[in-house]
Amino acid sequence: VIVINLDKFFKPESVAVIGVSSNENKIGHIIFRNLMNNYKARIYPINPNEERIIGYKCYPSVLAVDSDIELAIIAIPAGKVMQAVNECYKKKIQNLIIITSGYSEIGNKKGEEELKKLLAKSKMNVLGVNCLGNYDAHTKFDSMFIPTARMKRPKPGYISFISQSGALGAAILDLIASKNHGISKFISYGNATNLDESDFLEYLGGDVNTKVICIYLEGVKDGSKFMQTAKKISGKKPVIILKGGVTEKGAQAAMSHTGSLAGSTQVYSAVFKQSGLIEVYSLEEMFNLARLLENVVKPKGNRVQIITNGGGYGILGADSVSKNNLRLAEMYPRTKMELKGKLSSLVSINNPIDLIGDANDERFQLAIEKCMNDSNIDIILTLLLPQTPLITENIVNILAKINSVKKKPLIVVCTGGLFAQKIKSELENKGVPCFDFIPDAVLAIKRFCDYHNIK
Amino acid sequence: VIVINLDKFFKPESVAVIGVSSNENKIGHIIFRNLMNNYKARIYPINPNEERIIGYKCYPSVLAVDSDIELAIIAIPAGKVMQAVNECYKKKIQNLIIITSGYSEIGNKKGEEELKKLLAKSKMNVLGVNCLGNYDAHTKFDSMFIPTARMKRPKPGYISFISQSGALGAAILDLIASKNHGISKFISYGNATNLDESDFLEYLGGDVNTKVICIYLEGVKDGSKFMQTAKKISGKKPVIILKGGVTEKGAQAAMSHTGSLAGSTQVYSAVFKQSGLIEVYSLEEMFNLARLLENVVKPKGNRVQIITNGGGYGILGADSVSKNNLRLAEMYPRTKMELKGKLSSLVSINNPIDLIGDANDERFQLAIEKCMNDSNIDIILTLLLPQTPLITENIVNILAKINSVKKKPLIVVCTGGLFAQKIKSELENKGVPCFDFIPDAVLAIKRFCDYHNIK
Repeated sequence: VIVINLDKFFKPESVAVIGVSSNENKIGHIIFRNLMNNYKARIYPINPNEERIIGYKCYPSVLAVDSDIELAIIAIPAGKVMQAVNECYKKKIQNLIIITSGYSEIGNKKGEEELKKLLAKSKMNVLGVNCLGNYDAHTKFDSMFIPTARMKRPKPGYISFISQSGALGAAILDLIASKNHGISKFISYGNATNLDESDFLEYLGGDVNTKVICIYLEGVKDGSKFMQTAKKISGKKPVIILKGGVTEKGAQAAMSHTGSLAGSTQVYSAVFKQSGLIEVYSLEEMFNLARLLENVVKPKGNRVQIITNGGGYGILGADSVSKNNLRLAEMYPRTKMELKGKLSSLVSINNPIDLIGDANDERFQLAIEKCMNDSNIDIILTLLLPQTPLITENIVNILAKINSVKKKPLIVVCTGGLFAQKIKSELENKGVPCFDFIPDAVLAIKRFCDYHNIK
Repeated sequence: VIVINLDKFFKPESVAVIGVSSNENKIGHIIFRNLMNNYKARIYPINPNEERIIGYKCYPSVLAVDSDIELAIIAIPAGKVMQAVNECYKKKIQNLIIITSGYSEIGNKKGEEELKKLLAKSKMNVLGVNCLGNYDAHTKFDSMFIPTARMKRPKPGYISFISQSGALGAAILDLIASKNHGISKFISYGNATNLDESDFLEYLGGDVNTKVICIYLEGVKDGSKFMQTAKKISGKKPVIILKGGVTEKGAQAAMSHTGSLAGSTQVYSAVFKQSGLIEVYSLEEMFNLARLLENVVKPKGNRVQIITNGGGYGILGADSVSKNNLRLAEMYPRTKMELKGKLSSLVSINNPIDLIGDANDERFQLAIEKCMNDSNIDIILTLLLPQTPLITENIVNILAKINSVKKKPLIVVCTGGLFAQKIKSELENKGVPCFDFIPDAVLAIKRFCDYHNIK
């Protein structure tokens, strides 16, 4: 496998956008405007029919630009793409993003084959066709044709996401941003006419801003290349994979989406396992696990201590831990004695620790700190119901401070409306993974322990 | 089973709150203030140490009030409860809510036994002890000791919720309200010292504002009474049950929470099934199913048609439908022809129908209307990704209008950030069930078909 340097797809110093209309609802216009507003580089709008676009001089073709161009984004109808690519080649542009659709995904295999040959001959690196583009939360480079009003961009983080589907990627980025989670790089690669999933996986494997790689895949073009790359990269950092088309009906749908032969589920699952990839079965599961892998220190074992202010929630937590074959920790008698000495007799000091409805922030602090120092406990699962009146926003600082020592995993579930969402968002901002619901959190912990081979 | 009329717990014309401090953080004060602000009735604060509370004349005991009182809410320490109950008895108050904790749940079995005897002798109807109180979204009666700033109250709907755990109930109400779902009645019954889960189930069975009953249960006090009631009510309307303490560890936790003997999971599950109850395994699953049972018409079969603007989402949807043993519909050739005649050749008219990234509201309207009229389709699952620029807020009106005919179930998944949440909230407001994620929606459809015996 040849390692291709894709840095210029994420921090180009000069960018041409080919097909920038003056109509602000058109794809090229949206891409140009996003770059103009958020990314610092020389940018050139290309359109033979316009003189100026949003105050920028407009060029009839890339050949008319008298400086060098590191990356071109093509957003014109399929019929005009070949010419634009030829002009980019003449201009010695090394890197292309082709947003344009209308190729093999609608049965136009001939068009895609011709383009593929031209791209191979020209030795350019090309993302697309039929893709949403890409995004880097650290550099703010953004070739996605969705206005920021419709899709919020996530803040910088260390999870990167490779998606064969653009719209699915857009929805997930929007959701991640709204939850205040971070991301590193996002790549929608569409039909993989030139660069494919393996090339991006290889690149992200060497990317210092990527700690965890997530892949949504419908089909693989070159199986042995993918296996070889996956094996190599999964040895360096966790790679989570969600396969679309794992059922017969789903596979049929994949065929007409990206023209992918989805292949047998069993074969894919076996290949993923052999290649060290972590297979998941939904997008939520993917990002829940990714957040733990991004933020949480490896535990010594799978003995979970539950701490809550809601009795029923503690019981559901204990049920969930048991059902997922994790263990409920048994704290040292000394820890129990120390907690009993400092807390009201109404509080239940077992597993779960039930701090009951009149718990304040300090009661949580005391319980969590004691559990952090108890070597019979490996993981602390805090089930926080912030509806009770004595919990304040300061719980965020308390949890974040304890967590910053990274002694053992601290995972929070916080359920509810506006106030709960605020606490959740602030905890995420400070690197404490926080979930809406117990089953999601416990499943993520289970997958996390599995990844670390903790039984 | 004696049917007890509990109307006065939800629409009393006169209410005494026993233990209203002038300290606005205290439980009695919060309850009194919530009633004062939101509920229309005569209300009397009781406190021997105060002259006036928030502008109201304060009484030393209920005996000092010279009008009749239909319901008293007791929020004083356990040691003073017996005297207050005796005074209520003398005052001929028929209905009591005892919020106070400190009984069997902390090992004070003697205290609870004494109180239980007094209550039985007095023939009053009593909710509690150790409970959060209750709420009626239609009348706005509210005895819950959580300020509205911390816990939003849901709008009126037709799902009622009986919860053995108060804090769990609070978190769920808060969440439901924030998602713009509705509720009818909420009852946190705590230790069930007098009235128990069966009494509330019986009452809700006859309540015209309750279409679906949800129960969170840790243990049952009187098994045969519960089975008898459950059988009777589940014949009238759907009753969904979530059992806390289904594992050994969870059961131990339940013991110290509400003093419930959780009993064997297998026994409970068998009893639930025999009694016609729908058992679920998480709170999300409970409310997702309840929303379908509340809003959605019974389908003729389980043939699901997926309509989406995101190819990858369609594939994941098809996978999810297959994995849940539902069927993917095969539309009539005529429907397919008609759609092909009106839509761009890029659109894929199969199952899923992929309206692709440039879909506008009208394209969705056309596809959904055609599927509504195709008798080969039983259920329509719309996977809407509102990040793409041509989807507008008007999609809400379009979907709501089609849904209002109630021809067949229309279920929506809408994933994303602020704009998606807005669409979701408005759809819910207009009675179209809308989910964040595909697996949750499809599982709910599966459970919904199971309830209707559709295979």
